[in-house]
Amino acid sequence: MSRFQPTQRTQVKRLPDRGAYDSETVFKILDEGLICHVGFSEDGQPFVIPTSYTRVGDTLYIHGSAASRMLRTLAEGVQVCVTVTLLDGLVLARSAFHHSMNYRSVVVLGRATLVTDPEEKIKALEALTEHIVRGRWNDVRLPTEAERKATAVLALPLAEVSAKIRKGPPKDDAEDYELPIWAGVVPLSTVPAAPIADPRLKAGLEPPDYAKKYSR
Amino acid sequence: MSRFQPTQRTQVKRLPDRGAYDSETVFKILDEGLICHVGFSEDGQPFVIPTSYTRVGDTLYIHGSAASRMLRTLAEGVQVCVTVTLLDGLVLARSAFHHSMNYRSVVVLGRATLVTDPEEKIKALEALTEHIVRGRWNDVRLPTEAERKATAVLALPLAEVSAKIRKGPPKDDAEDYELPIWAGVVPLSTVPAAPIADPRLKAGLEPPDYAKKYSR
Repeated sequence: MSRFQPTQRTQVKRLPDRGAYDSETVFKILDEGLICHVGFSEDGQPFVIPTSYTRVGDTLYIHGSAASRMLRTLAEGVQVCVTVTLLDGLVLARSAFHHSMNYRSVVVLGRATLVTDPEEKIKALEALTEHIVRGRWNDVRLPTEAERKATAVLALPLAEVSAKIRKGPPKDDAEDYELPIWAGVVPLSTVPAAPIADPRLKAGLEPPDYAKKYSR
Repeated sequence: MSRFQPTQRTQVKRLPDRGAYDSETVFKILDEGLICHVGFSEDGQPFVIPTSYTRVGDTLYIHGSAASRMLRTLAEGVQVCVTVTLLDGLVLARSAFHHSMNYRSVVVLGRATLVTDPEEKIKALEALTEHIVRGRWNDVRLPTEAERKATAVLALPLAEVSAKIRKGPPKDDAEDYELPIWAGVVPLSTVPAAPIADPRLKAGLEPPDYAKKYSR
C-alpha cells in the first residue's frame, strides 16, 4: 500500500487521528464520490465550484466547456484545491458542543494542466462518463471531433493529498454519559430512485441495468 | 420576494438560464443542505474545507474550534467563498457529450466576521444545532462558558450570492433523439437510515422522533 507524503499544508493538525494518507483510503473516497468542489482564486477572490471528476491511477481529471471561466483559469496553471466529501451521518451527542458529523473527505492541492494529447483526452472523457455510470460509455453516441474540441479536460496529479475521516459514535465528556439524553448516529447515504425516462424517449427502450439498479 | 443583485462575480454567465438570484430559491437550498464547502486562500494556495453551517435571516454562520487554522484565517476578514451543493440526479443523455447532473447550488462571496456578541453567538450555536436536527437544542446539555470560548462562530452576510440549478431530462442534439439509446435521469437523494444508539447509551433511552423519522 503506497502512502502520500503529508506536507505542511496537507497534514491534518487539530485532530490528527482523523487524518489518513494511504492511497487505498484516498482512492476509495475519490472513487465513491460523484462531485468535487474545486477551489481557485481570481483577483484575490476564492471561488468554490462543484463539478464532476474521475480518477485514473494517480491523476484526477475534471472537464467542462472550453469556454468556462473556471476551466480557462485552471488551465493557466494556478494553484487549485479539489475537495471530495462524503457525508455518512449526523452525530448526536449528549452535549450541544460535541455534536458532529460522520464524513470522509479528500483534499488535493496542486496545479492542473490542460490535457492536449488526443488519446489521453478521450480516455479521460471515457473515465469521466464511466465514473458516473459504469457501463454507459459503450452505449452512447461518442464525442465528435467538434465536441472534443469544445470540451476542456484538466489533469491534476494526486501528489499533495490527504484524507480526513470521522466515524463512529459521539464522544461526550466523561460526566455527560450519565445524562438521560439519547445519543447516537443518524446514518445518511446517497440513494438512487427508479430511473425517470426522458419524455422524448423512443418507444420500446427499457432502462439499462446500470440505471435500474444504480449503485456505487 | 427579494432578490440578490448579481455582480460581475456572481452572475451565471455560460448557461445563464441556470442562474437564480431570488432569496426564496437561495434560502431553500441553504436550508436543505447539511454541509458547505468553504474556500479561502493562504499564501496564494486555495483551500476548500467541508463544514456545517446554518442560515439566520440574511446571515450564514459557520463554527469550529477557536484553534482551527480555517477559523483563525477567516476571522482575519480574508475573502471567502462558501458553496452549498445538493445533488439531485444523474442525467444520462444519448450522447456522451450531453451527460450531466441535476443539482442545486449556492455560491456566497464575501468576508466573514467573528461573532463576539454573546447573545448572537449563543443564538447562532442554537441555529447550527437546529439546522442539523430540528428539536435537538432543547434536549441536550447546553454549552458551558468554557465551551463557548473554545468555539469560534463566524458570520458571513448573504449579500453577494447566486444559485445555480439544473433539473429535468437530458438535452440532446436534435438528430440524436432518433438513436435507439435509453436516456433519462437517475434521481439521487440523501436518505437517513434507522438511528444507531451510542454503545454507551444508558438503558431505557429511546431515540427521539427527530432521529427515528429524520427528514429535511
